[in-house]
Amino acid sequence: MNKSRLEAFSDGVFAVAITLLALDLAVKGPDSPHPLAWQLGHAWPSYVAYLISFLTIGIIWVNHHATMNNVRVVNRTLLYLNLVLLAVVVAIPFATSTMAEYLSKDNYSARVAAALYASVFEAMGLAFALLFEWILRHDNALHDPMPAAVKNRARLRFYGGQILYVIAIAVAFLNAQVAVGLCAVTAFYYLFERSGPVPGLDDG
Amino acid sequence: MNKSRLEAFSDGVFAVAITLLALDLAVKGPDSPHPLAWQLGHAWPSYVAYLISFLTIGIIWVNHHATMNNVRVVNRTLLYLNLVLLAVVVAIPFATSTMAEYLSKDNYSARVAAALYASVFEAMGLAFALLFEWILRHDNALHDPMPAAVKNRARLRFYGGQILYVIAIAVAFLNAQVAVGLCAVTAFYYLFERSGPVPGLDDG
Amino acid sequence: MNKSRLEAFSDGVFAVAITLLALDLAVKGPDSPHPLAWQLGHAWPSYVAYLISFLTIGIIWVNHHATMNNVRVVNRTLLYLNLVLLAVVVAIPFATSTMAEYLSKDNYSARVAAALYASVFEAMGLAFALLFEWILRHDNALHDPMPAAVKNRARLRFYGGQILYVIAIAVAFLNAQVAVGLCAVTAFYYLFERSGPVPGLDDG
Amino acid sequence: MNKSRLEAFSDGVFAVAITLLALDLAVKGPDSPHPLAWQLGHAWPSYVAYLISFLTIGIIWVNHHATMNNVRVVNRTLLYLNLVLLAVVVAIPFATSTMAEYLSKDNYSARVAAALYASVFEAMGLAFALLFEWILRHDNALHDPMPAAVKNRARLRFYGGQILYVIAIAVAFLNAQVAVGLCAVTAFYYLFERSGPVPGLDDG
Repeated sequence: MNKSRLEAFSDGVFAVAITLLALDLAVKGPDSPHPLAWQLGHAWPSYVAYLISFLTIGIIWVNHHATMNNVRVVNRTLLYLNLVLLAVVVAIPFATSTMAEYLSKDNYSARVAAALYASVFEAMGLAFALLFEWILRHDNALHDPMPAAVKNRARLRFYGGQILYVIAIAVAFLNAQVAVGLCAVTAFYYLFERSGPVPGLDDG
Repeated sequence: MNKSRLEAFSDGVFAVAITLLALDLAVKGPDSPHPLAWQLGHAWPSYVAYLISFLTIGIIWVNHHATMNNVRVVNRTLLYLNLVLLAVVVAIPFATSTMAEYLSKDNYSARVAAALYASVFEAMGLAFALLFEWILRHDNALHDPMPAAVKNRARLRFYGGQILYVIAIAVAFLNAQVAVGLCAVTAFYYLFERSGPVPGLDDG
Repeated sequence: MNKSRLEAFSDGVFAVAITLLALDLAVKGPDSPHPLAWQLGHAWPSYVAYLISFLTIGIIWVNHHATMNNVRVVNRTLLYLNLVLLAVVVAIPFATSTMAEYLSKDNYSARVAAALYASVFEAMGLAFALLFEWILRHDNALHDPMPAAVKNRARLRFYGGQILYVIAIAVAFLNAQVAVGLCAVTAFYYLFERSGPVPGLDDG
Repeated sequence: MNKSRLEAFSDGVFAVAITLLALDLAVKGPDSPHPLAWQLGHAWPSYVAYLISFLTIGIIWVNHHATMNNVRVVNRTLLYLNLVLLAVVVAIPFATSTMAEYLSKDNYSARVAAALYASVFEAMGLAFALLFEWILRHDNALHDPMPAAVKNRARLRFYGGQILYVIAIAVAFLNAQVAVGLCAVTAFYYLFERSGPVPGLDDG
């Protein structure tokens, strides 16, 4: 099968999902009883939600890119594992806008919204893990198979970040805003954990 | 003509259509009289609709990919047959959201919605069949022409799945949820009927 | 400059625009006082609008594809002419939904909506003409420059179709539905006028 | 890393963002108490907003294209700088529709909306500057490194345009429509400042 179409289709889905995030920035406009400056000021949860989700989708795209770079052979199993990842990615704008709508409130729904948000990121991580493990376990699908020690270090670093999302889900039921903050921290963890999930793939 | 543009354009349309599916996941948010957990719990028809439609579009994309891999020459007829397929694909988010809105009801409209849903999938199958038959009948457009027996087995397997959609349409007028379940079964049929519509194209 | 990015960006814009057309298919759903079958039956202007616009965007994409195939050198002027075409293409979903909303009415607004619809198609034709003339007049930008007689035949056939849109705009002020019918006829003219705007480019 | 995926993903994001701009063209339709001709006539701020934003995104796409053409090596830093640019690009439809909603009014909110609009363009310019400076400072990442004098001329011309946006932000608090006009002037500056931000890259 053709790796470039898997990449083109994935890039299209990532691009649409990341652009849809910005739809949540919309304010009510002249129909609102409040002036625009007030509306923009009170929309801060949208900006927070937008920035964290944009960064997180951006990072997963970079990691998808880095991981696929090392793949030589694409078969149906890999296409379907990739679809599982994309099915979670396209749900991120939904979780983002739901979280943004409740973030400035202090009630049980706000905590549910934050837990939903962290859960979708954790689901994305698990879906990426499926792809990642399939690739780590099929040396013959790779350009440059990696030694077992390198694979295990890659696993350790990748799954380390995932634990932060699990903590965020639990924390959400205590404090929504702290949980969302933890999702931001996790994004920065993956941003600076520069070796990427599959270290041999990184050239940066 | 240039096969890569046919693929890039198709990938773009598939990517946008599959991402739009997730817009239906949206809940009413803080304007609803119900807490978020209640809203999410009562949105189960959206999740069912989303999963079945995502899987179905994903599978047709994989099959489009597999079929096009074997095509060597692209002409205007093939571009237009491909447009017919895409015209049905982009209608799937509409059928999906309509079905999801009525699925939890038990009235005639719910049955019409389920019939609409199965009908759009059947239309997608017929549009794919046009592409598929054109390719099977133009050996000179292929990299590796297939023996007649292989073609007929591919036809049998592909049209076999289509019959399930016809049954789903009929069943919809008796029970909407069973009809939607049949659409899910058909998706799994095509998922595990791993040889793909054009078996020689599969390497998995 | 890189022709493949011009094509990829254009394919993306065409793909999003053609997919957005399907958003107009949405019906009111369970909030409507009418059963779904009634709603679907009364939505016929949406289906007509969707089919004509999908076909028209599809044809312009095929012609864009055919024309660009013969281009060898891409410079800034061509990129900007291409942007003018895309600026009109992305306005088609707006004209389509406006037309669909008024098509079943019989008032002055319906006639304005039909005139708007035909005008956007004519604007698309004029924008394509800019691209087309630039290419016809820059032999050194082509893989295979064409003899003048071939160019003039291509012009005759292309501009012939454009006259139909001008007639449709005028007719719109008498009868909206006839004008929309003329837009459909024009799409079929370009569909079967198979040589394409630049005949040497066609292999079908 | 693979430059073509950076380009494909960016093209997808630019394509979706530029197509979403056209959603603002929508009028209220038959639910409005006014006839369609009146609605279209009073929607002039939408057309102005659409044209300026489409042109601006189109130009930044052309410049992105021209700049990336000279890049030979893509690493993680460049991917992330590119994401910063895209994060601003996808916010343009939001700023555009907010500006369009207030442009015909003459109040403080209209001035805030115009300042927001110019600020998003300035933010896009700054994000592009990050990419541009990184590229100018990494000769080993380029196909053809440029002499220092050429780099400085490119900087002068690029930052010259940025000053116009800063002026537009200040002017917005005096007169919204003049500020929006300045954004249009800036687009034309970049359109005719044909050498592009990285002059060696231009072939037009």
